[in-house]
Amino acid sequence: MHSIRRQAASTLRQAKIRPFCAVVRAATPAAQRWATTQAGESGARTDTPKEKAPAPKQVKLTADSYPELKRDERFAKLTKEDVEHFKSICSAPVIEGLSTDASDDLEPHNADWMRKYRGTSQCVLKPKTTEEVSKILKYCNERSLAVVPQGGNTGLVGGSVPVFDEIVINLSNMSNIRSFDPVSGAFVCDAGVILEVADNYLAERNHIFPLDLGAKGSCHVGGNVATNAGGLRLLRYGSLHGTVLGLEVVLPDGTIMNNLNTLRKDNTGYDLKHLFIGAEGTIGIITGVSILCPQRSAAKNVAFFGVESYEKVQEAYIKAKEQLSEILSAFEFMDGAAHEIVTAHNDVRRPLADQHPFYIVIETSGSNKEHDDEKLGTFLEDLMEKEIVSDGVVAENETQASTIWGLREGISESLSKLGGTYKYDVSIPLKELYSMVTDTKTHLEKAGLVGEGSPVVDVVGYGHLGDGNLHLNIPVRYYDKSVEKALEPFVYEWLEKRSGSISAEHGLGVAKKPFLKYSKNEVMIRLMGQIKKLYDPKGIMNPYKYVPEA
Amino acid sequence: MHSIRRQAASTLRQAKIRPFCAVVRAATPAAQRWATTQAGESGARTDTPKEKAPAPKQVKLTADSYPELKRDERFAKLTKEDVEHFKSICSAPVIEGLSTDASDDLEPHNADWMRKYRGTSQCVLKPKTTEEVSKILKYCNERSLAVVPQGGNTGLVGGSVPVFDEIVINLSNMSNIRSFDPVSGAFVCDAGVILEVADNYLAERNHIFPLDLGAKGSCHVGGNVATNAGGLRLLRYGSLHGTVLGLEVVLPDGTIMNNLNTLRKDNTGYDLKHLFIGAEGTIGIITGVSILCPQRSAAKNVAFFGVESYEKVQEAYIKAKEQLSEILSAFEFMDGAAHEIVTAHNDVRRPLADQHPFYIVIETSGSNKEHDDEKLGTFLEDLMEKEIVSDGVVAENETQASTIWGLREGISESLSKLGGTYKYDVSIPLKELYSMVTDTKTHLEKAGLVGEGSPVVDVVGYGHLGDGNLHLNIPVRYYDKSVEKALEPFVYEWLEKRSGSISAEHGLGVAKKPFLKYSKNEVMIRLMGQIKKLYDPKGIMNPYKYVPEA
Repeated sequence: MHSIRRQAASTLRQAKIRPFCAVVRAATPAAQRWATTQAGESGARTDTPKEKAPAPKQVKLTADSYPELKRDERFAKLTKEDVEHFKSICSAPVIEGLSTDASDDLEPHNADWMRKYRGTSQCVLKPKTTEEVSKILKYCNERSLAVVPQGGNTGLVGGSVPVFDEIVINLSNMSNIRSFDPVSGAFVCDAGVILEVADNYLAERNHIFPLDLGAKGSCHVGGNVATNAGGLRLLRYGSLHGTVLGLEVVLPDGTIMNNLNTLRKDNTGYDLKHLFIGAEGTIGIITGVSILCPQRSAAKNVAFFGVESYEKVQEAYIKAKEQLSEILSAFEFMDGAAHEIVTAHNDVRRPLADQHPFYIVIETSGSNKEHDDEKLGTFLEDLMEKEIVSDGVVAENETQASTIWGLREGISESLSKLGGTYKYDVSIPLKELYSMVTDTKTHLEKAGLVGEGSPVVDVVGYGHLGDGNLHLNIPVRYYDKSVEKALEPFVYEWLEKRSGSISAEHGLGVAKKPFLKYSKNEVMIRLMGQIKKLYDPKGIMNPYKYVPEA
Repeated sequence: MHSIRRQAASTLRQAKIRPFCAVVRAATPAAQRWATTQAGESGARTDTPKEKAPAPKQVKLTADSYPELKRDERFAKLTKEDVEHFKSICSAPVIEGLSTDASDDLEPHNADWMRKYRGTSQCVLKPKTTEEVSKILKYCNERSLAVVPQGGNTGLVGGSVPVFDEIVINLSNMSNIRSFDPVSGAFVCDAGVILEVADNYLAERNHIFPLDLGAKGSCHVGGNVATNAGGLRLLRYGSLHGTVLGLEVVLPDGTIMNNLNTLRKDNTGYDLKHLFIGAEGTIGIITGVSILCPQRSAAKNVAFFGVESYEKVQEAYIKAKEQLSEILSAFEFMDGAAHEIVTAHNDVRRPLADQHPFYIVIETSGSNKEHDDEKLGTFLEDLMEKEIVSDGVVAENETQASTIWGLREGISESLSKLGGTYKYDVSIPLKELYSMVTDTKTHLEKAGLVGEGSPVVDVVGYGHLGDGNLHLNIPVRYYDKSVEKALEPFVYEWLEKRSGSISAEHGLGVAKKPFLKYSKNEVMIRLMGQIKKLYDPKGIMNPYKYVPEA
């Protein structure tokens, strides 16, 4: 990458990043069925702290963690007759605990991967067709049997496992790619297709799925849409509301809503599919997805910078928008504390010798490597000349690029090694984004909760700066009620004052439902309740979660 | 643009397009308050044919054109007391025909610019604030007075004028830009801000509005969102469902739904704003819009090609996606017949000497002129070498670029000079897009309706190829019932078989409502009716239009 070094060679030291054996990505066991990165960026606390509370053998029941939740007595209890009926309408085996000891088979569907939420469902159904989903829901609705739709079960807010005895409808048996049109880019698949499978299929056809996230090896396309997943490509390709062309959804009463449009433009009536994008399975089950997939970029660059202040991080972002413009595909940041933790805990050589208060990861993707290199080079020179960044390196190959990305993506796992972590995934107007970290730290310090002998190790921030999405993390030596009390509602009230969002990309589920009022006003919450009631009058779809019923 | 000529110079003749006085854009009277281009791309017939039916002085009443429409007797009739009440809650003068002769003032609000739809409203309100809109709707809902929201009144399907005596709520007095954040690109404004005003404001701040269309000098941002307008930038920046960040909407009962989010990511509940995008004012009135605006591109190129077949047009599009990729900002096409008509009627010098069955307009926008020129040059060489295009020119300056754009944008106006035109704005999977033109022509020829002495002059096609959006036009010497009978439902049935859309970007309004079933199945139509009923149980919002009530 010669062109980049041209004029700024004296100040910008070229990367000497070796292909470490222990890069962060590689440190994650390959067999792990969900990615730690996406995983760890959850809200509320995750990971069992080492010192005071050793990991229990079985995950605590959600009903015990949230004693305010009570089973809704409107719902019927599963009977052997129900199980027999399901067996008659499902072509795949029914996993059930009424007449057999199926606890080992039920467990992975009852508990989430974070070991934080667990229900007691005695029945898991894995329909193979949309018609089977329809028959199941029609029956459950008539019988008032509550259900929880389940994709890859990689969610972070307890949305994809039962709270009590809800029947699990798992979509993993619906995994066919239905069609792809390389001219328009319209890709249509079953909801149960794994994201990485979809992306690999598209890669062979020189396209990409417009969404990418750490959990891609396990998460389902349908689950991505149901949770309006954000991830790493949003900055460039926008949200799923812009890329999803059509959906096939089974409504609670069994009605199949076939809206699997493959057209880019269609102005014929209310665009109902958007209600189901991000609805977390509370008004229907998505069974098919049609989505517009962009051309795959031929060239990619990854760069890493040290920056002296958050003001300069913002300046760098403005410059990137101006100068990298159409080739900018990621603008991620982390603070010095996050960087210290990720490098200390992963035996990763620091790309930059000196310590800096902030670090930035920038990725470009374009169709012409030479042009991209030149744009990046000019941009780097400008940043150095104007002293917006203090130091920086550019990856010279795929391995170095992976290592840089590992520094960003590995933060969450590294934090977990410190003990427990209180985590918040929030959106904030850029100007005030980092103030949330400093204000929270000051607040906790005033409460005497930070430092040696105190529960809180530090307060760190990182995230998708280009999307205004901060991951606020508070690593603790041990969980302590005083920390929780100091954090909540402080964090939510702080966000409310700045019109921030209490959930940027992870949704509401069980975890955030009680805090919805901090991001949405009464009118909005009332209108949401109306929608829930309209589509799911009996309330059987993924109950106890998301938004209050009307 | 030297680089582009490099190797292909012998085959690719450089543009010699002079700055004609009579370029198509200039031929449109500057004072005309809506752009002919957008205007003419409507569905159904427009323009009064010269020979058999001279233009009437007054526009025919919609009630007379559509005798099947009857005034809904659920709605109250306007009284002097109502007018007095409106005067007490509106800070701007009330235009009313009960106690004054206000017909001249009412007429521009009762009739559409195409002179095709006309109602008989006796009251036009121009609220200045969201609170005033709220008070008006609350009162109208209680009194069961029907209303029609009105923006720039540049629509093409009769959606923005009353059908009978509905009260007009015109948003032109709500025209403040509320805020702009140059870091995130979030722009917030009143619904009545004119699109061009918004775009000019953003231009001064090095950003663009992510939507552009011919009517930009008159249309309102709120109207754009209410009709989910498509236009010229959709290929690059996507639909409004992807770019709109938040909305402020007044519901029929006067409730103000404040969802003016400026965050890029916010996963806190059903994303209700999408219901109002493209709802054509049938469930609420949009009073404020928050939208994500991209950085303005420093460089722009416009090229024009002659192509020998529709297959090659598609090949060129695939190549453009591959090679121009991130800088491709428009891919428009027209057939030979459309090109003949636009050049013949506008005294425009042909950019290419020979005639071709198809022509393409390609635009690139990027941050680096040199890079864009080189990409375009490589692309052109490839097209010529592989004989995908037969001939082509590239604009060397802004005037030439405008002239090329004029050839595309002037088609509609040129067609109108032939007499009348039957027009359809449709979406079709790309592979079969042009078959609609040839099949329709064959169909009309078989019916003996084409050629000298027959009503039909020709069947022509053009449009936003990159978006799969065809404008099918049938210019006629005079309107004849036999042509209408031959076209409908033929055109709609043809679309239905190919899962096309009967309205790509112009919406439903009065014109397309009866044909909705050709693009949406019974379930979808029933679900749409539910939404209408949920938000507007008395049906007062823009009645007789859009979708059937439940």
